[in-house]
Amino acid sequence: MDIGTLLEGELDQAVSRAASEACPPKLADALRYAVFPGGARIRPRLVLAVANACGNRNPTAAVASAAAIELLHCASLVHDDLPCFDNSALRRGKPSVHAAYGERLAVLSGDALIVLAFEWLAVRAGERLAPLTRIIASCVGGPSGICAGQAWECESEIDIVRYQRAKTGALFAACTMAGAASSGYEPLGWQKLGFAIGEAFQVADDLRDVAGSAEKLGKPVHQDEANQRPNFVAELGFDGAMGHFEDLLAEAMAAIPPCPGQEQLGQQITGVSRSLVSGLSSRTAAA
Amino acid sequence: MDIGTLLEGELDQAVSRAASEACPPKLADALRYAVFPGGARIRPRLVLAVANACGNRNPTAAVASAAAIELLHCASLVHDDLPCFDNSALRRGKPSVHAAYGERLAVLSGDALIVLAFEWLAVRAGERLAPLTRIIASCVGGPSGICAGQAWECESEIDIVRYQRAKTGALFAACTMAGAASSGYEPLGWQKLGFAIGEAFQVADDLRDVAGSAEKLGKPVHQDEANQRPNFVAELGFDGAMGHFEDLLAEAMAAIPPCPGQEQLGQQITGVSRSLVSGLSSRTAAA
Repeated sequence: MDIGTLLEGELDQAVSRAASEACPPKLADALRYAVFPGGARIRPRLVLAVANACGNRNPTAAVASAAAIELLHCASLVHDDLPCFDNSALRRGKPSVHAAYGERLAVLSGDALIVLAFEWLAVRAGERLAPLTRIIASCVGGPSGICAGQAWECESEIDIVRYQRAKTGALFAACTMAGAASSGYEPLGWQKLGFAIGEAFQVADDLRDVAGSAEKLGKPVHQDEANQRPNFVAELGFDGAMGHFEDLLAEAMAAIPPCPGQEQLGQQITGVSRSLVSGLSSRTAAA
Repeated sequence: MDIGTLLEGELDQAVSRAASEACPPKLADALRYAVFPGGARIRPRLVLAVANACGNRNPTAAVASAAAIELLHCASLVHDDLPCFDNSALRRGKPSVHAAYGERLAVLSGDALIVLAFEWLAVRAGERLAPLTRIIASCVGGPSGICAGQAWECESEIDIVRYQRAKTGALFAACTMAGAASSGYEPLGWQKLGFAIGEAFQVADDLRDVAGSAEKLGKPVHQDEANQRPNFVAELGFDGAMGHFEDLLAEAMAAIPPCPGQEQLGQQITGVSRSLVSGLSSRTAAA
């Protein structure tokens, strides 16, 4: 089975557990809507790529972790789009959850997706449950997971490294660490790789926000400027940000710990990362 | 150590994990503010009472479950008070989290408390982690946990039994089932007791909303009428609702499964339940 089919099947099973017949119909619809159709599923694919590079000794725990991380990512997007945060009406090329279902169901479906992520791990991760739950939870909650990253935006003074690392890097670190842990590798050695990929993706995201098109991204551009958020292009210029992106990719390559599939993993990460910024240039930035 | 001290200590340890020095200061404050000082801590006390009645064979797993359930209860209150739901400015006698810290930190602290609940279980529940996570998650997410209960309020047609059971009963079922499971008892036999207590508490809550005082409760009264929510007093009258409350208590007593501390558990449940409605009468309802 190809990885995309495997992942969508796992996510479908997980969401069906929460959005079953007993569920209030609108909540069930909102849960499905928040998860399907997905974006590029970059994070769960990274979990599986790392698990494969480590010998994939527990495929069930690996794909359950991948699904849990994607559910948490979807939850964070739903809450991130709320009127009190980005107030974004568009996500993945369609109305955001609160735009389609109202604010109450957006709050509730985000909450239910967070719960479902941990429930799904408990159903599927078997003997790896405790370390996988700890890894994933620490990357989404406080003091330095996604929630903390968002919360830095509420502070008058922001440490940008800590902010980016919590908001974006932490979930990528969850991917590399959970992928490795699912195959019995010591997770902490895989954290640095996750942070480097996360930083590279953050720079790519900033480049796309400045130089991409809303049509291609499926979400509004120029949002960092509109929301007065830090952006690497604003700080370093387009070419500077692109150079920084390449530096971070090289850093990621150097951070891959020894494992059977080390080389192939490096190629996969480079390929997916570069595809994010392909077609962007200082000309599209000025457009 | 008395139960109150034990519980507050466990909650303090859990919250300190998320609200540590690395946490954005306002989020850390909001997390503490949402959990301390608590209300009556009825749910975690019920977990421990059931665990004790079952022989308390794994006190660490029992108190971890109690803390996790209280954290989830606090999270639900924070989100429930948001402007898009009850828009309540007062909770436990002080400004609600969104009134004190703003809407963004209220959403984030609720999210972080949900994550923390499952993280704490993974840190502390040991070999009981999988069943306890499954029990607790199923009582807070979809299709029939707290999130689903709230989501019924977004439907045009509400099945009141299913609604009350999901919104209030489910978390009480989590308490009885987790308390029993922490001592190795089969949890499903303890679900009925939880639902009966939950229903009794819902009726008590309705009685307090109609006949209680905001000062004593630490939150506004007459909210069901204001928010056009179903209320047993509106449906059955004060005396009818009080009679229904007593029937539900009797049902709860009959539902306690055989266990070493069966009798004492019954006395504890009756005592705590009746204390909720003491001093209420049709006279205070008319006031």
